[in-house]
Amino acid sequence: MQFTATQIAELLNGLIEGDANVTVSKLSKIEEGCPGSISFLSNPLYTQYIYNTKASVVIINKAFVLTAPVAATLIRVESAENAFAKLLEMYNKVKLDKKGMSKMSFIAESARLGSDIYAGEFSYVGENAIIGNGVKIYPQVYIGDNTVVGDNTTLFSGVKIYSETVIGKNCIIHSGTVIGSDGFRFNPENDNKKVPQIGNVVIEDDVEIGANCAIDRATLGSTILRKGVKFDNLIHIAHNVEVGENTYFAAHGVVAGSTKIGKNCMFSGQVGIVGHLNIADNTTITAQSGISKSINKIGEVYMGSPAFDANKYRKAYIHFRNLNSLVERIDKIEKQQVQTKL
Amino acid sequence: MQFTATQIAELLNGLIEGDANVTVSKLSKIEEGCPGSISFLSNPLYTQYIYNTKASVVIINKAFVLTAPVAATLIRVESAENAFAKLLEMYNKVKLDKKGMSKMSFIAESARLGSDIYAGEFSYVGENAIIGNGVKIYPQVYIGDNTVVGDNTTLFSGVKIYSETVIGKNCIIHSGTVIGSDGFRFNPENDNKKVPQIGNVVIEDDVEIGANCAIDRATLGSTILRKGVKFDNLIHIAHNVEVGENTYFAAHGVVAGSTKIGKNCMFSGQVGIVGHLNIADNTTITAQSGISKSINKIGEVYMGSPAFDANKYRKAYIHFRNLNSLVERIDKIEKQQVQTKL
Amino acid sequence: MQFTATQIAELLNGLIEGDANVTVSKLSKIEEGCPGSISFLSNPLYTQYIYNTKASVVIINKAFVLTAPVAATLIRVESAENAFAKLLEMYNKVKLDKKGMSKMSFIAESARLGSDIYAGEFSYVGENAIIGNGVKIYPQVYIGDNTVVGDNTTLFSGVKIYSETVIGKNCIIHSGTVIGSDGFRFNPENDNKKVPQIGNVVIEDDVEIGANCAIDRATLGSTILRKGVKFDNLIHIAHNVEVGENTYFAAHGVVAGSTKIGKNCMFSGQVGIVGHLNIADNTTITAQSGISKSINKIGEVYMGSPAFDANKYRKAYIHFRNLNSLVERIDKIEKQQVQTKL
Repeated sequence: MQFTATQIAELLNGLIEGDANVTVSKLSKIEEGCPGSISFLSNPLYTQYIYNTKASVVIINKAFVLTAPVAATLIRVESAENAFAKLLEMYNKVKLDKKGMSKMSFIAESARLGSDIYAGEFSYVGENAIIGNGVKIYPQVYIGDNTVVGDNTTLFSGVKIYSETVIGKNCIIHSGTVIGSDGFRFNPENDNKKVPQIGNVVIEDDVEIGANCAIDRATLGSTILRKGVKFDNLIHIAHNVEVGENTYFAAHGVVAGSTKIGKNCMFSGQVGIVGHLNIADNTTITAQSGISKSINKIGEVYMGSPAFDANKYRKAYIHFRNLNSLVERIDKIEKQQVQTKL
Repeated sequence: MQFTATQIAELLNGLIEGDANVTVSKLSKIEEGCPGSISFLSNPLYTQYIYNTKASVVIINKAFVLTAPVAATLIRVESAENAFAKLLEMYNKVKLDKKGMSKMSFIAESARLGSDIYAGEFSYVGENAIIGNGVKIYPQVYIGDNTVVGDNTTLFSGVKIYSETVIGKNCIIHSGTVIGSDGFRFNPENDNKKVPQIGNVVIEDDVEIGANCAIDRATLGSTILRKGVKFDNLIHIAHNVEVGENTYFAAHGVVAGSTKIGKNCMFSGQVGIVGHLNIADNTTITAQSGISKSINKIGEVYMGSPAFDANKYRKAYIHFRNLNSLVERIDKIEKQQVQTKL
Repeated sequence: MQFTATQIAELLNGLIEGDANVTVSKLSKIEEGCPGSISFLSNPLYTQYIYNTKASVVIINKAFVLTAPVAATLIRVESAENAFAKLLEMYNKVKLDKKGMSKMSFIAESARLGSDIYAGEFSYVGENAIIGNGVKIYPQVYIGDNTVVGDNTTLFSGVKIYSETVIGKNCIIHSGTVIGSDGFRFNPENDNKKVPQIGNVVIEDDVEIGANCAIDRATLGSTILRKGVKFDNLIHIAHNVEVGENTYFAAHGVVAGSTKIGKNCMFSGQVGIVGHLNIADNTTITAQSGISKSINKIGEVYMGSPAFDANKYRKAYIHFRNLNSLVERIDKIEKQQVQTKL
C-alpha cells in the first residue's frame, strides 16, 4: 500500500505544508522515521524530533508553531494523536482484510456459513458449526462440531475451538489459544477416574484473547467470559469459571475451577486465583499475587501470596526487607534486659 | 442424539414416573434444567429444585420421597449420582467417537497403523511411527518420525509430538500440547553452544495432559511421565525429569531439568521445582510455591518460595501480616528501656 | 542409521579394542547402555559402569587404564566427552535433515524462496514472505505475509509467525510458539477500544525459542530479541520489549510492555518483569522473582516479589522462617519489662 501526502490529507481532513506528492507506505514513531514512513507529533516531549526526523510525512496539530525549517511534508489536523490513531486503524483493517474460502480448507457439509467469510488453508470447520458473517478463520484453525462463531470474529492461525463452544461477535482470538479443553477433574473416590466434561465455553461479544491461552469447558453448564473481557497471553481458565464484563487479565493469569469474577477487574501478570471463590467487581490484583479467599468488597486492591490489602502488604514488606535490623534491635534489647536485671 | 425417558430408564435399569415418551437431547444441572434436558437430584441441598426444574427428565434416588407434585418425568434408580455419571460417560463416548482416515491427512508409508484409527484432516504421521488400535488423531495433529502411540489414546487438535516419543495406552493429550521439544541446555564452556538433545519422552498408560503444555525430551535417555500422571494446562516439564505414578499437577506447574518426582504427589497451580532434586512420594505443594531443595520425607506439605513446611509457613505468614504492629511493640519496648535506665 | 565400531572409530579418529564389526544404532548413557547402543565414559564417578554396561560400544579416554575385562568394544580417543558430543551433533543433524517441498503445503506465489528449503505438509507461507536458504518449515507451520526468515533457521511443527516478522539466521523455534501476536493495549480514555498493533517482531541471528512461547508485536516499531537470546518454554514477551544479546530466560518468564533488558542476563523460571523498566547487563534473577523497578547496576542478583538484592533477601527470609520464635522473644521481653517496672 502506497499513498501520497495528498491522499492522506484528504482522508484526515488536514492541510498540507510541503511536497504534496511525496509517497509513504508505512507508519513509524517520529524518532524512528525513515524515507517512505509517516509519523505524528503530539507529545511536547518529542518536539525536537520534528526538525530532524527522516519520516517523509508528519502529522501535527494545527496549533503547533514551527521554530525552524523541517524537511518532512506536514499534514496539519485538529488532533495529531487522533488522526494517527485513525490511520493505524485503517492500516490494520486493510492488512487484516483477508477474504475467500481456500480449497485447501475443510468445511463440513452440515456447517452453516454466513457471508464474506475467510477460511484459510488447512483450516477445519466441524459438523453443524454456525459461522457468522465476516468471520475470519486463519490457516490451521480448528473449529469443532456444534460450535457457534459470531459475526466479524477473527480466529488467528492455529486457534483450536473444541465442540459446543459459543463465541460472540467482534471477538479476536490469537494464535495457539485453545477453547473448550476438558476441565481438570478426577474422582478420588473412584480410583481417580476422569469426570467427563460435557459442558462448554461461552464467550460473549467484544472479547479479545491473547496467544496460547487455555480456557477449559465446564463439567456441566458453561465456562463464561462476559462481554468485553480482555486476556493477554498464556492465561489459564478452569472449568465453570465465570469472568465478568470488561475484566482484564495480564499474561500468565490462572483461575481455578468454579470461581466467579466480577466486572471491571484488573489483574496483573502471573496472578493465581483459587477455585470456588467470588471476586467482587472492580478488584485489582498486583503481579504474582495469589488469591485464596473470596473478595466481597468492591474496588479493593490485593497483593501477596496469599494476598491481602495491598497497602498493608507493602508496609509489611518494608519491614520484611528490614527484618535483619529488627532482629538486631531485639538482640540488643535482650542484652540490656539482662544487664538491667543484674 | 435424542432419547426417550423409556430408553434412558432401560439403560440405567430405573423405574419411570410420569410421561415415558418425553425426549431429551442434553444433560444439565437441575437448577439450569430446560425442556429437552435430563438432570439428576442427589445432594439434599438441591432438593428444592425438583419441584420447579424445567428439565424434562430427572434421575432421583429410589428412596427419595416427594412432598409436592413435580412436572418432570422421574427415573428412579439406586444411586442417582452414579446413574448420572454413567450417562455423562456414555454421552462423552458417543460425542468423541470419531472414525476414519481423512484423505486430507498425511500418513507416511512406513508408518504402521492399528485398526479403528481416526486421523482427522491435516494431521501428519511421520516415518516409522507405530499407531495402536483405536487411536484418535484429531485434525492438525503432528506425530513425528519413530514415535509410538498406544491403543485408544486420544490426541486432540493441534497436539505436536516430536520424533522418538513413546506414548502409552488410554492417554488423553489436549490441544496445543507439545511433547518432545528440545531441553534447554547450552554449554557455557563452549561459547554457549546448544547441547544436542537426542533423548526422548516416554509417557506411560492412563496419562492425561491438558492444553498448551510443553514436555521436553531428555538430553540423553528419557523424560518420563509414569502411569496415571495427570496434568492440567500450560505445564512445563524440562529434560530428563521423571514424574511418578498418579502424580497431579494443577495449571502452570514448572519442573526444571533432571528432577525426580515421586508417586501420588499433588501440586497446586503455578508451582515451580528447581532442577536436580528428588521429591518424595505423596508430597503436597500449595499454589505458587517454589521448591528449592529435595524433599525426602513422604507425605509432607510444602508452602512458600522458597518453600518449607506449610504449617510453619502459615504461622510465619500471620506474623508477616502483623509485622507493622510487631515493630510498634519493639519501638515501645525500646522507649521503656531508655526510661528504665534513666 | 546403523554403524560399525570401525566406521565410528574412523569418524572420531580413535583406536578400537574388541570386536570392530559390532554395530550400533543409538546413543545411550553408560548406565543405561543396551545391545546396539554406544556410550562414553569420562566422569570418574561412572567408572564402575564400564565393567558391566550392556552398551555394544563405549568411547573412553586414551589414558584410561582398565582394571578388569570389559564386554563392550572400546574406542579410545583423546577426549571421550568431546568425541561423544561430536557424535550427538552428527546424530542430531542427520535426524533433522528434512528436505523437499510438500505438495500438501501452501506457498504464496509472491513468496521468495531460497535453496534447500524443507516445507512440510500443511505448512503455509504467506504473500511476499522471504525465506532463506536451508530453512526448515515443519508441518503445520504458519508464516504470515511480508515475513523474513533467515538462512538455516528451523521452525518446528505448529509454529505461528504473524505478518511482518523478521527472523535472523540459524534460529530455532520450537512447536506451538507464536511470534507477532498483538500487544495487550486498550485505551481507557476511549471506551477501552483496542489500540491497533502495527509494529512487528525482529529476532536476530542464533536465537533459540522453546515451545508454546508468545512474543507480541510492537504497537509501533519493533519488539526485539537480540543475537544469541535463548528462551525456554512458555515465555511471554509483551509489545515493544527488547531483550539484549545472549540473555537467557528459563521457563514461564514474563516481561511486560516496553521494558528493555540488557545483555548476558540469566533469568530463572517463572520470573516476572514489570513494564517500562530498564534491566542492566549481566543481571541474574532467581526463580519466581518479580522485578518492579529498573536495575541500573551491572551484574546484580535479585530475588523476591517484589525483588531486591538476593543476599539481603535470603537473610530476611531466614528471619521470616523464624518469625514465630522472634515473636515469642518479644512476648518474653514485654513480660519481663512489666516485672522490672513492678
